Amino acid sequence: MRETAIIGVGMTPVSAKSGKTLPELFVKAATEAIEDAGVDRIDSMYVGNMMSGFLQRQEHLGALMATALGKEGVPAYKVEGACASGGVAANAGVKAVLSGLEDIVLVGGVEKMSGYITPEVTAGLMMAEDRARVGSTGITFVGLNAMIAREYMHKYNVPHEAIAQFPVLCHENALENPNAEFHKKISVEDVLRSPLVADPLRLFDCSGIGDGAAAFVLAPLDQAKKFTDSPVKLAASAVATDALSLYQRPDITIFEASRKASAQACTMAGVRSGDIDLLEVHDAFSVLGIMALEDLGFARKGSGVDLVKDGACAREGGLPTNTFGGLKARGHPVGASGVYQIAELALQLSNRAGKCQVPNPSVGLSQSVGGIGSTIAVHILKRTA
Amino acid sequence: MRETAIIGVGMTPVSAKSGKTLPELFVKAATEAIEDAGVDRIDSMYVGNMMSGFLQRQEHLGALMATALGKEGVPAYKVEGACASGGVAANAGVKAVLSGLEDIVLVGGVEKMSGYITPEVTAGLMMAEDRARVGSTGITFVGLNAMIAREYMHKYNVPHEAIAQFPVLCHENALENPNAEFHKKISVEDVLRSPLVADPLRLFDCSGIGDGAAAFVLAPLDQAKKFTDSPVKLAASAVATDALSLYQRPDITIFEASRKASAQACTMAGVRSGDIDLLEVHDAFSVLGIMALEDLGFARKGSGVDLVKDGACAREGGLPTNTFGGLKARGHPVGASGVYQIAELALQLSNRAGKCQVPNPSVGLSQSVGGIGSTIAVHILKRTA
Repeated sequence: MRETAIIGVGMTPVSAKSGKTLPELFVKAATEAIEDAGVDRIDSMYVGNMMSGFLQRQEHLGALMATALGKEGVPAYKVEGACASGGVAANAGVKAVLSGLEDIVLVGGVEKMSGYITPEVTAGLMMAEDRARVGSTGITFVGLNAMIAREYMHKYNVPHEAIAQFPVLCHENALENPNAEFHKKISVEDVLRSPLVADPLRLFDCSGIGDGAAAFVLAPLDQAKKFTDSPVKLAASAVATDALSLYQRPDITIFEASRKASAQACTMAGVRSGDIDLLEVHDAFSVLGIMALEDLGFARKGSGVDLVKDGACAREGGLPTNTFGGLKARGHPVGASGVYQIAELALQLSNRAGKCQVPNPSVGLSQSVGGIGSTIAVHILKRTA
Repeated sequence: MRETAIIGVGMTPVSAKSGKTLPELFVKAATEAIEDAGVDRIDSMYVGNMMSGFLQRQEHLGALMATALGKEGVPAYKVEGACASGGVAANAGVKAVLSGLEDIVLVGGVEKMSGYITPEVTAGLMMAEDRARVGSTGITFVGLNAMIAREYMHKYNVPHEAIAQFPVLCHENALENPNAEFHKKISVEDVLRSPLVADPLRLFDCSGIGDGAAAFVLAPLDQAKKFTDSPVKLAASAVATDALSLYQRPDITIFEASRKASAQACTMAGVRSGDIDLLEVHDAFSVLGIMALEDLGFARKGSGVDLVKDGACAREGGLPTNTFGGLKARGHPVGASGVYQIAELALQLSNRAGKCQVPNPSVGLSQSVGGIGSTIAVHILKRTA
């Protein structure tokens, strides 16, 4: 079977005041990735996006972005998996290369969430859930995650101040990331005193939404050295789903799709969780960051917070996590976040992470979550040089 | 490289009064395809859809449909390419099998367009074009196609009554298709006297929109015989784009993406256009059916109508076209149509087309168009037994 490598990455800053259109955002990230790769052609492109149909009343992002990029002609389409749209777009790109049909493949994620009133964005996010059965109750997407947080804290007897360490870590890591939405150190007290959004989740438990785009260029591993001295092997791509809605699950404190996708990805990459020394997890809400550490196999249920408290997740720790700030502080333009994660891992694994660099990581894993754990894409990247 | 086969198909009737939800439509077609294939598992699923974010305010169709189908857990995501969403979903499914990562793959397309006022559906269809630059002018999607029709008729000196033979053919073919939206024989005079929609296009120049879903199950060709005596080889899948908007093109009477995608598909399948003896083309508007015959290489520009007039496109002709009624008369639930086309070809090539059957076709080609020729997916299917 073919193997796949990342040969170039690009991303825009995440901002709630970008002033940019969807194509402008996409083109900036994609152009940067193509220039970084040094390729003179792309064979196809896959665009991750969740909300353009609802917020921008714009679909057909494949041809739209190909045209905006000056690549009209190439095969191009949009891939959607709610907030994991970037992760599933990456999966489509990997399959395109592995199929043997395409060699130089652009994967991009883009989302524009600014310029709309809060109820519009709130309604947009609820498209990740079953609108007829759950959305019709009036509960918000934050509300669903608040139910998870409440149950998690109760079941495992974990206080809010423990979970609140996750956003503190992310804000610390984002300080040195020029593309981060927030450059602001925060404390556990800041989280606990921030305005209540949906009890128990407070403002600083929640990721920042904004506009952003990220992209990377894939090539078959055996061709990658032509383009870069430091290709990063994309060793595994796995997607799993779970029952869409919380009411359909036996235990809402576990994301089974995380377990399933990460197990499949580890098998595909030929690694065990102990081999992974770099993580990007989908901390759309503080509790999800903690749960990810557990469901991906790095901690027992209820003890994920210990990894953060012990410093393991810090850049100088044994399992550096969300080293560019994660969804919380880099920002979470939903359909783009899964691509940001992979691009950030690729920068780390090629020693190009600048002031965010951790010392010599070898194997990185990203976890992109759609809905309330209903779709999860896991990717494993490996250093090659 | 692996080869791919279709081992089961399913579809709902197309109806503007289905009374069914998106999941209900999808589950009906998918269940039928899975039962037809006789598989006890699927490894992944790809859902083609264009408008759910706008019309239903529902995204995350991958996990939603997997859950509705009782297949929660499997990798699943939505693939979108405007009205070619079904065609590009098929492309994603083929790549999944060719990648070697998945064996038994479900491809489904679904769209619900009934129950909305006309301006909503009209706005939804315009999401296929550049909303900022073109949609903002107020022109409708039918209007854009009317410009193509006007230019085509002028440039090649083809009268409306010639083009009008295409919907007449489709209505004739739909008479025996139980899943067709319209069972009504029409004449050229009926087309020319039907209400004007966007000059020169009249009501019967335009495909019927409605609710519908279609699905098929893919497997590696070397495993297909385990499931069916008559697998149909899916010999080629190719997608091409063009500049998104008409104003960006040198000649709006040619869909370059049709030429590009069909050339690539013929190379992949190892066939020439002369080998193809069965066609499903994207006749969203009468003129597009005629243009498809030309751009796919079966007639010179301006002479596509001759194929219809001569009877070549009839079921008993040399190049049976839209044998179940096409978009015009089977109906055009946009994100599903590309999947209907492939499912219908598969039925023909396995001699299971019932009263729509043409005698012993060997090689079929489908063309699915997104926007005004901005994305085109071409598939080539071959009989194996």
